[in-house]
Amino acid sequence: MTSQTDVQNAAAPGAAAPQTTHTGHPHYGRITTTGQGDPALAAGLQKVLDGRWADARRMTREAMTPDMLNPIGVTMEEHRAHVLDQMRRLADSGMPGLGFRTEDGGTGDTGGALTSFEMLGHLDLSLMVKAGVQWGLFGGAIANLGDAETRGKYLPGVMSLDLMGCFAMTELGGGSDVQNLETTATFDTETGEFVVHSPTPSSEKWYIGNAARDGSMAAVFAQLITHAENGEELRHGVHCLLVPIRDEAGNDLPGVTTTDHGHKGGLLGVDNGKIMFDHVRVPREALLDRFGAVDADGQYSSPIDSVGARFFTMLGTLIRGRVSVGAAAGAAARTSLALAVRYSLIRRQFDHPATGKGIPLLEYREHQRRLMPRVARAYAYACAQNAIVAELHDFEKNPEAFDAERRREMESHAAGIKATVTGFANDTIIEARLACGGAGYMAENLLTEMRADCDVFSTFEGDNVVLTQLVAKELLGAYAAEFGDMDQRETVAFALTTAVDVVQEKARASTLWQKLIDTVTDRENTDLLDRANQLELLVDREEHLLETVARRLRKAQGEDGSAAFKVFNSAQDHMLQAGRAHMDSWVFARFAEAVDACEDPEAKEVLGTLCDLYVLDIVDRDKGWFLEHNRLTTERTKAATAARNRLCTKLAGKARTLVDAFAIPEFVFDVPMLTDGGVDAPLETTSGADERG
Amino acid sequence: MTSQTDVQNAAAPGAAAPQTTHTGHPHYGRITTTGQGDPALAAGLQKVLDGRWADARRMTREAMTPDMLNPIGVTMEEHRAHVLDQMRRLADSGMPGLGFRTEDGGTGDTGGALTSFEMLGHLDLSLMVKAGVQWGLFGGAIANLGDAETRGKYLPGVMSLDLMGCFAMTELGGGSDVQNLETTATFDTETGEFVVHSPTPSSEKWYIGNAARDGSMAAVFAQLITHAENGEELRHGVHCLLVPIRDEAGNDLPGVTTTDHGHKGGLLGVDNGKIMFDHVRVPREALLDRFGAVDADGQYSSPIDSVGARFFTMLGTLIRGRVSVGAAAGAAARTSLALAVRYSLIRRQFDHPATGKGIPLLEYREHQRRLMPRVARAYAYACAQNAIVAELHDFEKNPEAFDAERRREMESHAAGIKATVTGFANDTIIEARLACGGAGYMAENLLTEMRADCDVFSTFEGDNVVLTQLVAKELLGAYAAEFGDMDQRETVAFALTTAVDVVQEKARASTLWQKLIDTVTDRENTDLLDRANQLELLVDREEHLLETVARRLRKAQGEDGSAAFKVFNSAQDHMLQAGRAHMDSWVFARFAEAVDACEDPEAKEVLGTLCDLYVLDIVDRDKGWFLEHNRLTTERTKAATAARNRLCTKLAGKARTLVDAFAIPEFVFDVPMLTDGGVDAPLETTSGADERG
Repeated sequence: MTSQTDVQNAAAPGAAAPQTTHTGHPHYGRITTTGQGDPALAAGLQKVLDGRWADARRMTREAMTPDMLNPIGVTMEEHRAHVLDQMRRLADSGMPGLGFRTEDGGTGDTGGALTSFEMLGHLDLSLMVKAGVQWGLFGGAIANLGDAETRGKYLPGVMSLDLMGCFAMTELGGGSDVQNLETTATFDTETGEFVVHSPTPSSEKWYIGNAARDGSMAAVFAQLITHAENGEELRHGVHCLLVPIRDEAGNDLPGVTTTDHGHKGGLLGVDNGKIMFDHVRVPREALLDRFGAVDADGQYSSPIDSVGARFFTMLGTLIRGRVSVGAAAGAAARTSLALAVRYSLIRRQFDHPATGKGIPLLEYREHQRRLMPRVARAYAYACAQNAIVAELHDFEKNPEAFDAERRREMESHAAGIKATVTGFANDTIIEARLACGGAGYMAENLLTEMRADCDVFSTFEGDNVVLTQLVAKELLGAYAAEFGDMDQRETVAFALTTAVDVVQEKARASTLWQKLIDTVTDRENTDLLDRANQLELLVDREEHLLETVARRLRKAQGEDGSAAFKVFNSAQDHMLQAGRAHMDSWVFARFAEAVDACEDPEAKEVLGTLCDLYVLDIVDRDKGWFLEHNRLTTERTKAATAARNRLCTKLAGKARTLVDAFAIPEFVFDVPMLTDGGVDAPLETTSGADERG
Repeated sequence: MTSQTDVQNAAAPGAAAPQTTHTGHPHYGRITTTGQGDPALAAGLQKVLDGRWADARRMTREAMTPDMLNPIGVTMEEHRAHVLDQMRRLADSGMPGLGFRTEDGGTGDTGGALTSFEMLGHLDLSLMVKAGVQWGLFGGAIANLGDAETRGKYLPGVMSLDLMGCFAMTELGGGSDVQNLETTATFDTETGEFVVHSPTPSSEKWYIGNAARDGSMAAVFAQLITHAENGEELRHGVHCLLVPIRDEAGNDLPGVTTTDHGHKGGLLGVDNGKIMFDHVRVPREALLDRFGAVDADGQYSSPIDSVGARFFTMLGTLIRGRVSVGAAAGAAARTSLALAVRYSLIRRQFDHPATGKGIPLLEYREHQRRLMPRVARAYAYACAQNAIVAELHDFEKNPEAFDAERRREMESHAAGIKATVTGFANDTIIEARLACGGAGYMAENLLTEMRADCDVFSTFEGDNVVLTQLVAKELLGAYAAEFGDMDQRETVAFALTTAVDVVQEKARASTLWQKLIDTVTDRENTDLLDRANQLELLVDREEHLLETVARRLRKAQGEDGSAAFKVFNSAQDHMLQAGRAHMDSWVFARFAEAVDACEDPEAKEVLGTLCDLYVLDIVDRDKGWFLEHNRLTTERTKAATAARNRLCTKLAGKARTLVDAFAIPEFVFDVPMLTDGGVDAPLETTSGADERG
């Protein structure tokens, strides 16, 4: 299985050039000019990327059609209508059922559901987000928080789209601080109803999907209030209620005011809006009461005593949302890389001095450096994403198998991978668009719309800065039961006592790490291309960052809240660095495991090279740190930079195959820049490109 | 002139907090909660930023009205119509005349014209680009390349908009390789006409502003061909001809086919299109013949013998375009920073542990680290941009005062500053948008549209990678007469002989550097906050990078073209690094000069701190290099990182004042997120923010 098609020497076919695949330096792969990859190798790689839910991927892929692509150049209302039509198609296909339990009328395949959502990221992020709002968030809230009767009453309509709904959590004032949202749901014992109310301008629900147009009901997160017999107000924390917001004609119901957010920076196919409640009365059954119920007498009860723990448990729904968002962003990033790589193989710029023929863009070192490390990271993140999907699937299938620590780690990694992959996706789509020059800026070539749509993925479903901080806090052992909360006191208090011990234990003791070191190490040297050394390098960085930040937080010992905040705040960048370092090594471990498990020798070798590039890219970007902390000598970092360049060139020789393995439906590439603009056909006319095919 | 308003302690008003401005550590400035800056300090800073064309800035600023802002949520055709209306207003105001010579009916104020264009970048980049196409490029081509008769005939209409035109240079196939464009203009001696023709699909003119709708004429760049008496074809290189493309009804003229590019990633107010010519005949006078004429007998003559030099001279027009593009991108970046800073001062997130009150976003270290280094860079680039505008103005006033070297340097710096500032602007607008969370994603708050519009600034008017390479090549002494060409042979050949000597001479010998070192150094130490040491650090890095890349290129000595390309290509990242390092030190020098010249002591001190942060930011980002090359010890780089954090906090205490000095019209800030959404009014209701004002 040699890949003759994409390692032929394109730019230098003269006397000095290698005429066959393997005569050149192994680090000096050559670029295809035919735009064809190696199907067998691509299949081997695809198998690894497809992962455990390969069947769901295949079925989704086969069901995808060109009309599911982001429609370009339509108005906002047209895009909304288009996406709603596609939603109906998805509903008819039965896809939504994957995400619901069998007793609720679904098929109970969390992994399959998440994988199907992810695949939508290749086509239109508006469709993915609206599907996520309807089935993942709105439907998920009912499925996770409702009793059997409520689920039976509403979920069939949620799946079929007869009932479209909103996930009304975020408020203008609170933003990321969900636990302190202001909307109230006060139980009126006399009528047996809840009164849902927005008490201040800042308590208005903002950015709510399906709120501007299509939603007729909202899952409203509100502070639940009952009254003791003596009239005292009892606050039970954030709970969720189902509140009808629109009649069948689409008009706001009495007491409800919705407002269209109108144009956003992207995702124009999603009708985001605001919702305000003016003493809206709903029956007692409207409360989704799995973790907190109010009886007819107004007595509150909950299986979970702690308000914080209860809040967090209720927000379990968000985990799935975060995993989905990261997955779809990763899919969009892969699409953008596939577009840019294909373009770079057929688009030529400037003539070769010896041949006088145009040089394919990917032949240039800088172009390789722009695209290939991102291709390597795309592979790494895809493997990590598959791992977190599997973990969540297994958890939902059998929660009892997860002890508290494993569950916390899963939630922390869901947050971390969301921040990591969405940040990566936005950076990558931008670079892919720039790498396509003027053609990349034409909306018809998909990259600019993808970028506009993906942008908000970095700040919604948890702001990336907040989520990265959450990862660091979990590592410091101070897991905030208050999901998404930045309670500095708690972090500081914990750091005073046990943090360093926990860090020591966490960083190297897990059986996972041990297994990896034991199985992958095959030579005893300190080569940067040795898997065990790579692991050691990344784990050691994470460990050192955690130890030192824990030491800094200790300084707050005995200080008041104000001084403690100062300590926390002055270490914030350090905490974030630690969180990112952990995600780097966690992703590396997942990628290395996938490489290790690959049974196809050629695919395994290529994956190994991608894994090397993933690590060298980290070392190159953070070499200041490795040098400052005497982890690497200047000779080693210089060698790492040079090796990174070599691997970029080597992998560029297989670039088409590497992106073919993403298995994106071919119709996505039916864009002008790859079919009739700036490509082989016209260029061959003038630069004789055909002679090299 | 103390700035009590914006250094009050907001987050920690408790016992330990400083109660007055100057009791705290000087590096620990505090954030305003009132959103008010210090007008006197802002005025002092503004004077520096306004620079030599402060009057033009003032007049433009006063003429700016809210209806010139990017209209949000309109269709492409509506945006196009809107921008055309605004163009008419600009034409009526006489603004276009600034850019034309007095003998052509203008006022001959290049600096004023460039400054006015720059200011449009605060409002709507579509308007800026369309104005640039019409008056800068199309009008500039006629003004620079046409004879007196042609100029007299067309320029009044260009200024008044009676004649709208295109700058038809870029072709689908050639892209950045302008010198090898394919369109031909063949002189037909029999009829005395030129035949303008697009011989291949790839020779179609692409991405041409005004081509889709409004242009009735195009300045067409084509290979000029005449025939010798014996019938032999004589090719004279790229020349420019005026070709009518549309009749008064807006229909394509015979032989001309225009196609609308439709939706782009942004700049929807500019009607970009394609143009194809099928043997279109124009009279002999259509040739803009200042640097190359054809007489009635078909005899070609030119005052410049070398085809390459002639080509380059004709493209002088592009210099102005590049300076304009960089300037407008810088203006957009400043607008985005002002929006994000204002939001960060009134938007609060999470409660302070001691006070229970919301903490303004800018109080967080990470938020300071996201915004403040970019504010410092915005100042640096504004000063550098002013310097290049002045240089170009002086050149156009008195070209004879510029020897070849000074002219080459000006052109190189115009290219470099365009690449530097547009890259910075895109990065900054993205970060500003993210720093505003969900509000940043709402189109009404301007950031997403700004980002969409600015995107293409990184690839048009010269791709940033190509331009950065141009800077490096000029430094290596091998100035390619072929503008924008990447002729590697030439670079390599030069490197073989003189490059290192030139590098040595360039890097430290200029009187400018000497003056700066002489005047600014006021203490003899190696502190990173000492201006002379900063200069030495940056110049030394540039010098080392240039020396080493020159040495690498020498390896191509005696090799054939193919091997020489390999040498060049494997050093491409190194060359780009050298080009960027040069721009860093060049910008630093311009900023340091501006600080040095500031007469207001308080403004001067703040500018000095911004200049420190600019340098520390470079050191922090490139500390791997400084460590690898033993320029700084690990203690020094760690100290630089810590100092960078301290300066971020210190300058955050004056953040509002710093962005007020950008002097952006106040109506720009009349956006929902700063007036009725997520800000003081609703938040005060719930978090008692008013108590701290």
